[in-house]
Amino acid sequence: MSPAPRRRAIATVCLSGTLEDKLDAAAAAGFDGIELFEPDLLASAWSPAEVAAQCAGRGLTVDLYQPFRDLDSTDDERFARNLRRAEHKFDVMTALGADTVLVCSSVAPDGVADPDRLAEQLAELGGRAGRRGLRIAYEALAWGTHVSTWEASWDVVRRADVPAVGLCLDSFHVLSRGGDPAGFAAVPAEKLFFLQLADAPALHMDVLQWSRHHRLFPGQGSFDLPSFLGHVLLAGYAGPLSLEVFNDVYRQADPMRAAVDGMRSLQWLEEALPAAAGPRPLPQAPELTGHSFAELAVDGVSGPQVAGVLAQLGFTHTGQHRSKPVQLWEQDAARVLLNASVVRPDGAGVAAVAALGLESADPPRSAARSIALGAPVLPRARGAAEAELSAIAAPDGTQVFFTRTGPEGWPADFLPTGNAAGSGAGLRRIDHIGLTQPFDSFDEAALFYRAVLGLELRDVTEVAAPFGLVRTRAVTGSHRGVRLTLSVPTLRRGGWSPGVPAPQYVAFLTDDLVATAVALREAGAPLAPVPANYADDLEARLDLPPDLLAAVREHGLMYEEDATGGYLHLATQVLGDRVFLEVVQRIGGYDGYGTGDTPVRMAAQRRARTATGV
Amino acid sequence: MSPAPRRRAIATVCLSGTLEDKLDAAAAAGFDGIELFEPDLLASAWSPAEVAAQCAGRGLTVDLYQPFRDLDSTDDERFARNLRRAEHKFDVMTALGADTVLVCSSVAPDGVADPDRLAEQLAELGGRAGRRGLRIAYEALAWGTHVSTWEASWDVVRRADVPAVGLCLDSFHVLSRGGDPAGFAAVPAEKLFFLQLADAPALHMDVLQWSRHHRLFPGQGSFDLPSFLGHVLLAGYAGPLSLEVFNDVYRQADPMRAAVDGMRSLQWLEEALPAAAGPRPLPQAPELTGHSFAELAVDGVSGPQVAGVLAQLGFTHTGQHRSKPVQLWEQDAARVLLNASVVRPDGAGVAAVAALGLESADPPRSAARSIALGAPVLPRARGAAEAELSAIAAPDGTQVFFTRTGPEGWPADFLPTGNAAGSGAGLRRIDHIGLTQPFDSFDEAALFYRAVLGLELRDVTEVAAPFGLVRTRAVTGSHRGVRLTLSVPTLRRGGWSPGVPAPQYVAFLTDDLVATAVALREAGAPLAPVPANYADDLEARLDLPPDLLAAVREHGLMYEEDATGGYLHLATQVLGDRVFLEVVQRIGGYDGYGTGDTPVRMAAQRRARTATGV
Repeated sequence: MSPAPRRRAIATVCLSGTLEDKLDAAAAAGFDGIELFEPDLLASAWSPAEVAAQCAGRGLTVDLYQPFRDLDSTDDERFARNLRRAEHKFDVMTALGADTVLVCSSVAPDGVADPDRLAEQLAELGGRAGRRGLRIAYEALAWGTHVSTWEASWDVVRRADVPAVGLCLDSFHVLSRGGDPAGFAAVPAEKLFFLQLADAPALHMDVLQWSRHHRLFPGQGSFDLPSFLGHVLLAGYAGPLSLEVFNDVYRQADPMRAAVDGMRSLQWLEEALPAAAGPRPLPQAPELTGHSFAELAVDGVSGPQVAGVLAQLGFTHTGQHRSKPVQLWEQDAARVLLNASVVRPDGAGVAAVAALGLESADPPRSAARSIALGAPVLPRARGAAEAELSAIAAPDGTQVFFTRTGPEGWPADFLPTGNAAGSGAGLRRIDHIGLTQPFDSFDEAALFYRAVLGLELRDVTEVAAPFGLVRTRAVTGSHRGVRLTLSVPTLRRGGWSPGVPAPQYVAFLTDDLVATAVALREAGAPLAPVPANYADDLEARLDLPPDLLAAVREHGLMYEEDATGGYLHLATQVLGDRVFLEVVQRIGGYDGYGTGDTPVRMAAQRRARTATGV
Repeated sequence: MSPAPRRRAIATVCLSGTLEDKLDAAAAAGFDGIELFEPDLLASAWSPAEVAAQCAGRGLTVDLYQPFRDLDSTDDERFARNLRRAEHKFDVMTALGADTVLVCSSVAPDGVADPDRLAEQLAELGGRAGRRGLRIAYEALAWGTHVSTWEASWDVVRRADVPAVGLCLDSFHVLSRGGDPAGFAAVPAEKLFFLQLADAPALHMDVLQWSRHHRLFPGQGSFDLPSFLGHVLLAGYAGPLSLEVFNDVYRQADPMRAAVDGMRSLQWLEEALPAAAGPRPLPQAPELTGHSFAELAVDGVSGPQVAGVLAQLGFTHTGQHRSKPVQLWEQDAARVLLNASVVRPDGAGVAAVAALGLESADPPRSAARSIALGAPVLPRARGAAEAELSAIAAPDGTQVFFTRTGPEGWPADFLPTGNAAGSGAGLRRIDHIGLTQPFDSFDEAALFYRAVLGLELRDVTEVAAPFGLVRTRAVTGSHRGVRLTLSVPTLRRGGWSPGVPAPQYVAFLTDDLVATAVALREAGAPLAPVPANYADDLEARLDLPPDLLAAVREHGLMYEEDATGGYLHLATQVLGDRVFLEVVQRIGGYDGYGTGDTPVRMAAQRRARTATGV
C-alpha cells in the first residue's frame, strides 16, 4: 500500500488579486490548503467565519495564519500589549478554523537577545495558544535581529519547552544563509509544525530584498530543494508542503496560471525527492533526443519571403502536406515546416514560430506526463493517412509536438514534391530555437520545460540590448540534442521600443560557418550587417588566427569564446514581423549561445529594417 | 563679466536606442558632448571617423571614450596584451576625436594590489597615451578588487606621476561608499580629468547591482550632489559636467524625454550649488502656497455622476465658465472645476484629473522658470473678459496652472450661478492630489516637481497592493500648502490587472472626519466600503480611544499613525474610469498619506465596482 498523498498548500501572498481571486485560483489548481496572509484578510469583506466557509466550499483548509511579527520585547509593557494583540488574533484563528500561527523572529530594536528570556516569552504565548487548541510555529527570519538561523530558532523552541510551540522551517531562510538542512534530523518530529517552500535565483543582494521580491517556485531557481525537503521528511515532518513565494512578477500576474505553476513545482519537487517514488508518481519523462522540425506560421506576405530565404540558405522544398497548406523544407537533418494557414487580414507579414517538433523516446508517455503536470493538450485534426501527433501548449502558446521521425512517423503526412535536394549550404540540423517569452511567464516557462519535458535549466544571463535589458536562459536535453533559449525583457516593453517585439529564431548548426557564409553570400541571403567596429574590437581583444579574423570581417560573422571553446554565428534580417534565422558553428566544448553579441545583432537587424522601410 | 557656461555632457549609456537615437536625443536636449560607451560604438555601422562627423554635425563632441577595463595585471604577458588592446583603442579615439579614455580599477582576480606596481603599469599606459596626445582618466569602481575608493585611485595616479594620467571622479562610486568629497581639495586641479555625475535612491543592496540598475539623474535620488559638485569645482575642476546613469527604466524609455530630463537635472544641480549663482541663472522658483483648484475632465456619462458626488460631499455649483463647458464647485477654500469638454465616443465614462491650479507668489515667473527648464508650455485659448493663465504640462500630461486667486484672477472667468452655498460637510481645502504616473516617467516627474516647481521630494514608499507592488513618493510645498503624491506600479501593468488603471484622486482636508463622515452618510455619498476586519486589526494593534474606534467601525474609516500623530481618511468609490475623492483629517504632526492603507482601499473600490457591474 502506498502512503497517503502529502497535503499541498499555497500562501495567498504567492498570488495576485483579492482574496476571492486567490481562493479560486488555489482551488482550481488542486491545492488542499492555504496559508492566509494577514493583509489579504484585512482587505476582505468576508468575516473570518465567512472566509472559513468560502475555503470549505472550495475544498480548501486554512493551514496557517501568518504572520505574527515582533512578539518578544525587552519592554515588559510592550510585551504585554503584544500578548493582547495575540489574543485578538487567536480569536480570528478560531473563527477561521486555523490552528497554527506563524510567529517570526523579531526584527525590532526591542527584540530579546537572551535566549532564556525569549523562550520564556514564547512559552507564555504558547501556553495561551495551547489552552485554545492553537499552535505557535516559530520561524527564524534570515534578517532577524537576534534569531536569524534555524538552529537559533530551534534552540529557543527547545528552551520554551511547551507542547504548543514548535518550528516553522522555511527553505528560503535556511538556504539563503547557506544553512545545512542535515541538522533537522536532531529535531523531534512533533516539533516540526510547518514547512514553507520557496526557491530563489542565485543573486548577490541584501537578503531581505532578495526574499521579498525574488523568490521563485521550487524548480525555478538554484536552491537544492529536493535535498532540503528530503531532510525535512526524514526528520518526520508530516504536515503540508506549502509554497511561500514573494515575487514581484507573480504579484501582478494571472493567479490562475500562477497557481498551476505552483502546483507543478510541488509535483516536480516530490518526484525529485531522493527517497523512493512518492504516492502520486508521474509518468517518467522520456528522453528528448533532438529537434525533428521547427514549424513557422506565415501568411501570404511573409510566406514567399521566408521560403525564398530558406532556399538561399540551401534548403529544398521536399514535401507538401496531404491536407493542409504546409510545406516541408529540408537540408540534411534540418527540417522546417512552413504553415501558410495564418489568415490575419490585420497582420500582413506575420511570421512566428508556431511549433517545435521534439524527438521523443516515447511520444505517448511524453504526452501523458504533460497531462499529469497540467499542461494544456491541443486538439489536433488528423487526415485519413496521417500520423497521430501528440501536442501540448508551452506557456508562450508555442505548440510542442512529441515525434518519432521515420517512415511511419510524421514525415508520412507529406507527399514528395519530387524536388531534388541541392548541395545545400552545410546546415546539418537545428542547433537551437530561441523564443521570447511573455513577460509574466519567463519563470513559468523554465519550470515547464524542466518539469514537463525533463530538460535541464542553464544559468540566467542578462545583456544590455539597445532597447532595454534582456534576460536569457537556456534549457537543454541530454547530449544537447535539444536546445532552447528563453528570453524576456527585464521590464515589460512600453511605448518606446523600436526593436522587434518578442523576436523568435531558429538556429541551424554547420561544421564550417565560413564555408556556409560564402554559400549564403553567393545565394544572396539577407544577412544582418555586422559592422566593422565589431571585428576591430575582436582583433583588439582576442588573438584570433589571421584567416579567421579575415573571414569574420569579410562575411560579417560574430564570434564569442570562453574557456571551453568558441562560437561563430550569423543571423538573417528579420523576416515578417518577428522571426529570423541563425547559422552557428560550435568549436571545441563551447556550450553557450553567443548571448553577448545580442546588442550587435539587434542593432544590425534594426538598420536592415529601417533601410527597407519595414 | 560672468564666467563661461560649464560644458554639459551625457553618457550614451543613459539613453535607450541605437547610437543615432542617442546622438539625436543628446543634441535636441542641448548637450555639448557625450561620453561614448564602447558597446554603442561596436554595434554602430558608422566608423569612428563617421561617428566624429555625426557628432560634429549635431554640435556634439566626444568628451570621453569608455570604458577600458582590467588594464593592470600581475601576469606580465597579460599586461602586454592589455597594452596592445589599448593601442587599438587609442586608434579608435584618434579617429573619434576623443582625447580622454576612462580606465576603471580592475575587478579581475589578476588585478595588481601593490600600488607601486599598479602605478608603474598605469604610467606605462599613460606614456603611450601622452605620445599620441591622449589622456587616461583613472576611476575607482566601488567594487574594484584592490582600488575601490577615490583616495586609493588618487594614490595610484600620484605615484604614476605622468602628465597624461589623471583622475575620473564619479559621484556614485564616491557617495555609495560614504566617501568624503572634501578631500578633493588636496588634488591638484590639473589632475582632475573628468567628472561623472549620478544620483541614486537610498537602497540596501549589493553596490554593483545598485550602480548598474538603479542610478538616477541628479536631484532624483538621495545623494547630496550639490555639495559633491561644490567640492569638485572648488578643487579647480574645469571639464564638463557629465551624466552617467545606468538605470533599467531609462534604458528602455524614450531617449528624447530622458535627455531633456538629464539636462534639467544638471540645470537644477548648478542652481543648487553652494557657491554664488552660475553663469546660466534660472528665474528663481516662486513660492507655491496652495491648491487653488483641481480640474476634472468628464464626459456626458461621468459628468453628472461626479457632480452628484460633489454635491453629496457638500460642494455647491457656484460658477459657470464664460466661454467653456466648465463648472466651478466650491466648499470653503476647496474648489473643483468640472470640465465637460471631453468628447470621446469610445470612452464613455472618462473622468480624469486634467489640471492642477497652484497658487504662485509670481505666476509669470513660475512660467518663465518652467520654460527655462524645458517644460512644455500649453497654448491657452482665452475669451475677452478672461484672466490670463500660464500653464505647463507635467510629465504625465496633467496641466499645471500658476494662479492668483482673487477678484482679478481666474475666478473672474466664472459667472455666478446664484446658488447659495449649503452648510457643507466640513471640507476646508484640498489637502493633496494623487496622480499615478506613466511607468517611464516616475523619476522624471519627481525631478520635474522639484526643479521646475521648486517643491520638496519626500521618501519613496512601497506597498503590496492587491494587483502588484506600488511605489509612491510625495512632493510638498512650503508649509505643506501644496501636496502631491506620485505613484507607479513597480512593474508596468500587463494583461491581468483587474484594478483601476492609473487611478487619480483629490483629497480634501477636514478638521473632524467623524462629523464629515456622518454628513456624507446622510447625503448618501458612495464611499468605498472598508471591511470590519480592518477595524478589528486596528483594535488589536493600537490603543485607540473607544469612541474613535467605534466611529471608525461605524463609518468605515481608515486610520494610520506614526510617532508624530495620526491620519483618518476615507475614499469614495471610483467615479468614471479612474478618479476618486478622499477626505482626510490630520492629527498632531502627521505628515504622511495613509499609504499603508492603500491595499484595503483598492480592494474596497474593486468590490464596489464589481458590485455595480462597472
